[in-house]
Amino acid sequence: MPRVRAHNFSVSLDGFGTGQGLSLDAPFGHAGMRLHEWFFPTETFQARAVGRERMDVDPSTAPDDAFASQQGRGIGVEIMGAGKYGPPGWQDDPDWRGWWGEEPPFHTPVIVLTHRPRDPLPVGETTFHFLDAPPIEALAAARDLAGGRDIHIGGGPTMLRDFLAEGLVDHAHIAVVPILLGRGVRLWDGLEALEARYDIASVTTPSGTTHLTLDRKVA
Amino acid sequence: MPRVRAHNFSVSLDGFGTGQGLSLDAPFGHAGMRLHEWFFPTETFQARAVGRERMDVDPSTAPDDAFASQQGRGIGVEIMGAGKYGPPGWQDDPDWRGWWGEEPPFHTPVIVLTHRPRDPLPVGETTFHFLDAPPIEALAAARDLAGGRDIHIGGGPTMLRDFLAEGLVDHAHIAVVPILLGRGVRLWDGLEALEARYDIASVTTPSGTTHLTLDRKVA
Repeated sequence: MPRVRAHNFSVSLDGFGTGQGLSLDAPFGHAGMRLHEWFFPTETFQARAVGRERMDVDPSTAPDDAFASQQGRGIGVEIMGAGKYGPPGWQDDPDWRGWWGEEPPFHTPVIVLTHRPRDPLPVGETTFHFLDAPPIEALAAARDLAGGRDIHIGGGPTMLRDFLAEGLVDHAHIAVVPILLGRGVRLWDGLEALEARYDIASVTTPSGTTHLTLDRKVA
Repeated sequence: MPRVRAHNFSVSLDGFGTGQGLSLDAPFGHAGMRLHEWFFPTETFQARAVGRERMDVDPSTAPDDAFASQQGRGIGVEIMGAGKYGPPGWQDDPDWRGWWGEEPPFHTPVIVLTHRPRDPLPVGETTFHFLDAPPIEALAAARDLAGGRDIHIGGGPTMLRDFLAEGLVDHAHIAVVPILLGRGVRLWDGLEALEARYDIASVTTPSGTTHLTLDRKVA
């Protein structure tokens, strides 16, 4: 049975998974890239961004990479919210092809949840499928595309929260970054007593990040 | 110069420092004692609750105690909010003497911030002083009572947040407990970009607690 996993989802200390004022020029709003700065120096990101032959990895990032690297293992499909696929209003732009250029980093099918679906869009090795469906139906569609591999829940915060609230996520890795955004979209809202359904563990790393893992308890 | 310190202030993963529905029977509302369970097995609490001769301390609690024990060092006065001193409405009860019985654990003067001050109240080695004043004035009054020692900011979440927002706290220890309360009073609201003014460090312990320390940056 494929597992449903979320990886490398960053939130601020006050629980915001993205900032306020999202736009084409500011994909994370006033948060900028601050939620993801722990990720950029890791081997996983460096190999993607500059290529292995030019990588210059600080060994102190290894504990962060132990988490970062898991996202690449055994994923056959990603489900993402509309807010991750483009800036507010992308649905009005028939030429919008996602943030990621002509070779998106997914290399698998991606399901984009949106109330205004459009035709499937192949970009490089990634094909975006657009679906207007609640979480449980989105998962069924994802299984059909996953080729027996696992399903990655890509965020943003609203859709990850929805999938967690319905108990549909098997494993989630949340990186808590020691900044206070003050405003934006909260991950943790409406998840009271999640600890009754998930084992929650924490590890801090030299970057100052606290990595939380949530593993669904075996019934 | 006396330092202003907060210790052993617990919040849930979603940032609530107390629950909803506070009452005489439920001092922390629906949170119960869950925010403080990491604290009870520590040597610091055990010595207070059962006495040193009957202590039975699990060595795995030592990392938590490294934080818990700091509250006892060099404090000459505590400032607390009205919500910590008693249940909602205690101001209408002239006989209310605090939650802590006839030997409160403070053993110093305590300033209780309230819009309805009353006469000072000695209980055991602790004297409660009642003051209607903004944070900066409360600190001046506290210094007069501290005998040159440090000032403890006792909470609850609203008053600690107010003192942090005004940059009046030198050191704060916040224990993040891996539970999701979902509702209650948030600590982190209105503290955007606190990291610009404080060095924030994190340590996780075997109890699953993440201990945050906030140290005001030297200007």
